[in-house]
Amino acid sequence: MSTQKFQIPEWAYEFHGHKCPFMPIGFLMGTIALEKLGVEKSQNHEMHVLSEMGVGHPQGCMQDGIMASTSATFGKGMMEKLHYGKVAATFWYPRKGGVRIVLKNKFQDKLAPHEFFKYRKQGIEPSEIPDNIRQDIIDIVLNAPVDELFNITMLPGFEYKPVKGSFAKAKCEECGEYTFERYLRVKDGKKVCIPCAGHELGEKVFYYPSFK
Amino acid sequence: MSTQKFQIPEWAYEFHGHKCPFMPIGFLMGTIALEKLGVEKSQNHEMHVLSEMGVGHPQGCMQDGIMASTSATFGKGMMEKLHYGKVAATFWYPRKGGVRIVLKNKFQDKLAPHEFFKYRKQGIEPSEIPDNIRQDIIDIVLNAPVDELFNITMLPGFEYKPVKGSFAKAKCEECGEYTFERYLRVKDGKKVCIPCAGHELGEKVFYYPSFK
Repeated sequence: MSTQKFQIPEWAYEFHGHKCPFMPIGFLMGTIALEKLGVEKSQNHEMHVLSEMGVGHPQGCMQDGIMASTSATFGKGMMEKLHYGKVAATFWYPRKGGVRIVLKNKFQDKLAPHEFFKYRKQGIEPSEIPDNIRQDIIDIVLNAPVDELFNITMLPGFEYKPVKGSFAKAKCEECGEYTFERYLRVKDGKKVCIPCAGHELGEKVFYYPSFK
Repeated sequence: MSTQKFQIPEWAYEFHGHKCPFMPIGFLMGTIALEKLGVEKSQNHEMHVLSEMGVGHPQGCMQDGIMASTSATFGKGMMEKLHYGKVAATFWYPRKGGVRIVLKNKFQDKLAPHEFFKYRKQGIEPSEIPDNIRQDIIDIVLNAPVDELFNITMLPGFEYKPVKGSFAKAKCEECGEYTFERYLRVKDGKKVCIPCAGHELGEKVFYYPSFK
């Protein structure tokens, strides 16, 4: 299987904001996940993506590519970060199980000496790097066979339980802004939003996926 | 200022996966934020968006619209959730300060009785709702004047400190996968990734923005 059959639409670059190699890598990961799970892109709230990326490191652009090819978007609540610091993601689709796709070390080593990264390590932003250098590294990605790029592990028993949704909301009794019930707190007997409650950001409520 | 001057490109709907009113609402929020801060869309890593949305409630689609109009994307690390459960976001641009935009209660009340939500509350996914109903509610959004839609608060002194990035990575000494240094841990004297360390998901390292 060659990646050359994959067409990256121009709008994916427009969405992302610049041309770089990692958005296309993510686009391929997402496309392969759809193929492996035997599903179409997610019009609504079907596929969930657990990205192993975190903060403060490069290559996160991959996640925009995954969203562009799968429509399992952050906005729809279909993508979250596991904060493992790896160029990898697990894709889960109801009743289909999961698949984990990770960018091979060897391919990362192949890309590393490319001139693109010399610029990046000097703090030069992607859009400021000469077009021909960016196109060259994108072509290296798009011309690579899939098995040079990725380790792919099918996870048929993988389970993920999305949070149960609710439309219920009420006005914060202090600032008056509508707040969904899950995030209302109580202060002096009044139902208030988190900022009006004076809670610190560290008290944010996280709901972790239930897999081990 | 009318929102009618805003053109929502077709690719934004293709990215999002379906037509609904909240992606366009987010698209407008992002467009207005760019105007108010006097900046262009973010090709690289310029504008940060602190979305007040959380999990388990509707209207998150707004965030895909914000990403589409600003290119301040989740993949590039430019968008995160504050988990306040509000249809609101603060936009921060280096040396320009911030602006907070919140969807007015009154406009939320105006939309609430629309047939679109009757379907949604029955658990019917957006793409399954008749096209004319979806177009009607989108038109209500796009025909509304900006001051009917949003409360806009300029925050000239707003500060946000992005995490300092690093390219440093190493192979996990157990599974062998490349891991960015921030996420390497130590187990029995070996540098290992978080899953190989056996750490629980609840131990994820979060870096909170430094504003109060």
